[in-house]
Amino acid sequence: MPNARLKFWGWGREDTVLGAEEIRHLESAYAKRFGLSSYEVTPTPRAEDIALRAPRVAVPGALAEVCSTDRYERLLHSYGKSFFDSARVFARDFSNPPDAVAFPRTEADIVAVLDWCDAIAAVAIPYGGGSSVVGGVEPPRTDRPVITIDLRHLDRVLEVDRTSQAARIQAGVYGPSLEGQLKPSGLTLRHFPQSFEFSSLGGWIATRGGGHYATLYTHIDDFVESLRVVAPAGTLESFRLPGSGAGPSPDRMFIGSEGTLGIITEAWMRLRPRPTFRASTSVRFRDFYRAAECVRGIAQAHLYPANCRLVDADEAMVSGAGIHAILVVTFESADRPQEQALKRALEIARAHGGEYEEPAPGREGAQREGAAGQWRDAFIRMPYFREVLTPRGIIMETFETAITWERFPDFHAQVKAATERAILEATGKPGLVTCRFTHVYPDGPAPYFSFHAAGDKPRMIEQCWQIKIAASEVLNRLGGTITHHHAVGRDHRRWYDRQRPELFAQALRAAKQRLDPKGMLNPGVLFDPA
Amino acid sequence: MPNARLKFWGWGREDTVLGAEEIRHLESAYAKRFGLSSYEVTPTPRAEDIALRAPRVAVPGALAEVCSTDRYERLLHSYGKSFFDSARVFARDFSNPPDAVAFPRTEADIVAVLDWCDAIAAVAIPYGGGSSVVGGVEPPRTDRPVITIDLRHLDRVLEVDRTSQAARIQAGVYGPSLEGQLKPSGLTLRHFPQSFEFSSLGGWIATRGGGHYATLYTHIDDFVESLRVVAPAGTLESFRLPGSGAGPSPDRMFIGSEGTLGIITEAWMRLRPRPTFRASTSVRFRDFYRAAECVRGIAQAHLYPANCRLVDADEAMVSGAGIHAILVVTFESADRPQEQALKRALEIARAHGGEYEEPAPGREGAQREGAAGQWRDAFIRMPYFREVLTPRGIIMETFETAITWERFPDFHAQVKAATERAILEATGKPGLVTCRFTHVYPDGPAPYFSFHAAGDKPRMIEQCWQIKIAASEVLNRLGGTITHHHAVGRDHRRWYDRQRPELFAQALRAAKQRLDPKGMLNPGVLFDPA
Repeated sequence: MPNARLKFWGWGREDTVLGAEEIRHLESAYAKRFGLSSYEVTPTPRAEDIALRAPRVAVPGALAEVCSTDRYERLLHSYGKSFFDSARVFARDFSNPPDAVAFPRTEADIVAVLDWCDAIAAVAIPYGGGSSVVGGVEPPRTDRPVITIDLRHLDRVLEVDRTSQAARIQAGVYGPSLEGQLKPSGLTLRHFPQSFEFSSLGGWIATRGGGHYATLYTHIDDFVESLRVVAPAGTLESFRLPGSGAGPSPDRMFIGSEGTLGIITEAWMRLRPRPTFRASTSVRFRDFYRAAECVRGIAQAHLYPANCRLVDADEAMVSGAGIHAILVVTFESADRPQEQALKRALEIARAHGGEYEEPAPGREGAQREGAAGQWRDAFIRMPYFREVLTPRGIIMETFETAITWERFPDFHAQVKAATERAILEATGKPGLVTCRFTHVYPDGPAPYFSFHAAGDKPRMIEQCWQIKIAASEVLNRLGGTITHHHAVGRDHRRWYDRQRPELFAQALRAAKQRLDPKGMLNPGVLFDPA
Repeated sequence: MPNARLKFWGWGREDTVLGAEEIRHLESAYAKRFGLSSYEVTPTPRAEDIALRAPRVAVPGALAEVCSTDRYERLLHSYGKSFFDSARVFARDFSNPPDAVAFPRTEADIVAVLDWCDAIAAVAIPYGGGSSVVGGVEPPRTDRPVITIDLRHLDRVLEVDRTSQAARIQAGVYGPSLEGQLKPSGLTLRHFPQSFEFSSLGGWIATRGGGHYATLYTHIDDFVESLRVVAPAGTLESFRLPGSGAGPSPDRMFIGSEGTLGIITEAWMRLRPRPTFRASTSVRFRDFYRAAECVRGIAQAHLYPANCRLVDADEAMVSGAGIHAILVVTFESADRPQEQALKRALEIARAHGGEYEEPAPGREGAQREGAAGQWRDAFIRMPYFREVLTPRGIIMETFETAITWERFPDFHAQVKAATERAILEATGKPGLVTCRFTHVYPDGPAPYFSFHAAGDKPRMIEQCWQIKIAASEVLNRLGGTITHHHAVGRDHRRWYDRQRPELFAQALRAAKQRLDPKGMLNPGVLFDPA
């Protein structure tokens, strides 16, 4: 049975929406929080009702099999999945769609599409799963035609090397298909971002995606063994190596390049056997900062838990996981039992005032229930909430960062306060700002903030920007990165430009000029259009 | 008491040379191996006897305190520490010295020196400890004046952040001083390359040096939290962050740039508490490839031993550690006992035919003796051997690489055979080629080859090049990196150029052009002179 179409107006496929009970639960929770008596619900847009600019290009005959100017495809590829995208979708604002969408099946197709873009002076936007929440796949406002290149058909695991535990994989494959194809080998990439179902390997690499591992292997970066990239200036491929010290790493120039330097078509990725041993529990803390100190202790003990997510009390409450800050600690291994490591982590937790039930040996199922399980279920459902909240005038957005430990408590307090203040100023009502750690390092955490506010539908986008700008300004002033794993896209440019050393920006721009002489690739992302 | 001067003709300081007994031992071992009845020993060169080109520059008055044209300094800064360097030293060939050597005390001094270089169209060679074994600090043959910039006075730990376990450190500091300054904090960088005593933080970063850790944190790269760099086009500094996903990493462009993109002046480095728990033992194997399979097992179990060095039987014999392949496995931690991890590693070793004595709990001292201790002592003394062997006509050189596991056995056999064949062809006599693993990854090892040959003194350099070229050609053809942690320098250029994707080379060259518009910095290293 073929898959249902992807929603152009929300997360995932058209046949997967929240159930009536889930919607009632969300409605009631937000109504209570913001004192709303009822909702006026904007109906879900229908493709045929949307006014859409005629394509500014005609697809040449040779590319007819590869390129589409279909209305639905142009709608689907107009936006990523941020609140701003959702709000524009429900406002029926598709004023700047791509003119055509290419679905190459081979690298030769990509080259042909880029040649066409070159011939018609078009902009080309590399597109994986389209899960960007930073404006990374949205067409720029330009008089040039815009061709989006959707890599979904480059979806094969081409080669598995069981001896070295690595595989050569096409970049357009989505998470579930990638893991499904690896399954017979017993190996796994185990990169599970929240977007896992609808994001691609190439997208993860191009945006330095953060995944499953809370420590040690936090970004996709470290799993890349080699890359193959098609740029307007040609094709390049790095040597497949477990490690090297030969000059600046070629891979590291393309990892995080967000489609501006070339289109990643393949990668050799490092894998590992599916874990068979697991030890996990959750710890309650009455104080978030003491919990953070505990996480620092675990990180600096170099215990390397696979999961070490700290959720503050407000976020735990929102997800139904309780009224305390919750730390979920999980160790996993394909080689040996992990109880010892968990025991040591719990000693550290206890020393920092953490409370927990002694993990019951061998009862992994039980550990999957409880607060940790509650939180994980909510985590996976979360991307679906937006298409329910936005049409009800609720602003829900997130931003994430990283900061060294010695600055963290003040940083957290100031960013949270500034965001709360901005919500009040923008909407006239108090909102909710919560924080969790998605990843942690010996030298600092990666705090991930969510904010919720009752918006005024016609002004929601402006209100949300006002909040995001206020938060980002404080975060930037206090030295946090403008993005730990969501990427820069268009939305973070103004802060990225201030954080990125200016001479590095110039050097990188010179490199881009060589790889993409006409500034065809994703102009406005990372760099200003040429 | 002030330190003795550094030897311009060998390793370390003038007051540290091998003792008569050590020399006799070396002489007798090599005599036996190569059937030599006696040695004609070239005397150690004296600075005053060497014909030296007059400096092609006059140091301007404003830089008189910072720059020297002293004979000894120009000799010292003429070469690194490879066999080729040693052979040229003993041949009294100092035909291409730097014209002056700058010893900046501040960043402002560096800027002033670069300004002077710019004004006189000079070449500038950044210089840390001068321990390069790849021609990384040697002046190019050029009509332009050459100024070497020795950073030894930028030698302070400026700031220690105990909370985040990191420190801001000047790039010119040598290993022992760096660790000495960190000592009061209880923190350590624990980066111990063989060159530790006479190499600098900036040099480690610029060359992607490999250090203490055999697994996980193999290169200095991962310890860099942020960098400060002075380039001819200006100064840049990256944000201090535990992790980030904001575009391609600025630090990764300069890590491994070998002095060609800018001069690293400071770095925030990640530290850790000094380890207090240790579990270590050595395992004997009758077959090197079975030992390699054992190392693969340990690496793929993600046990992360700090040391996991496999030494083949020939190398074990040379260093007096026995007649078998020896695997030294060490776990260390500042947090908890490591016996469990060692026990698991030994289970894996036993399954692969490894033999060992059960480690005696609490007898760490004893573990430091035995085969592992023998090998470590030899490791630290090794750089001193060259100044004894070269004047006796013995060629001793090393090269190192990395390769994925599935190719390793064939790769090792072919590289070793090609090197042995080349020694026979170049010298007319069989030589000795040994191999160890310096670092290992889940997806492959970093094999380090040493070769020993009886050379013909007037032709030694040519003979050694003949061997190195033959080995590198095979290594390159079979897909190994041309350098895992020694860097590219001038000596590896011809293979690096073939391994580095051409489009990446062009992009990086464009970046260099922006940072160093006149091609002042280390021309010929990584890039051709402009």
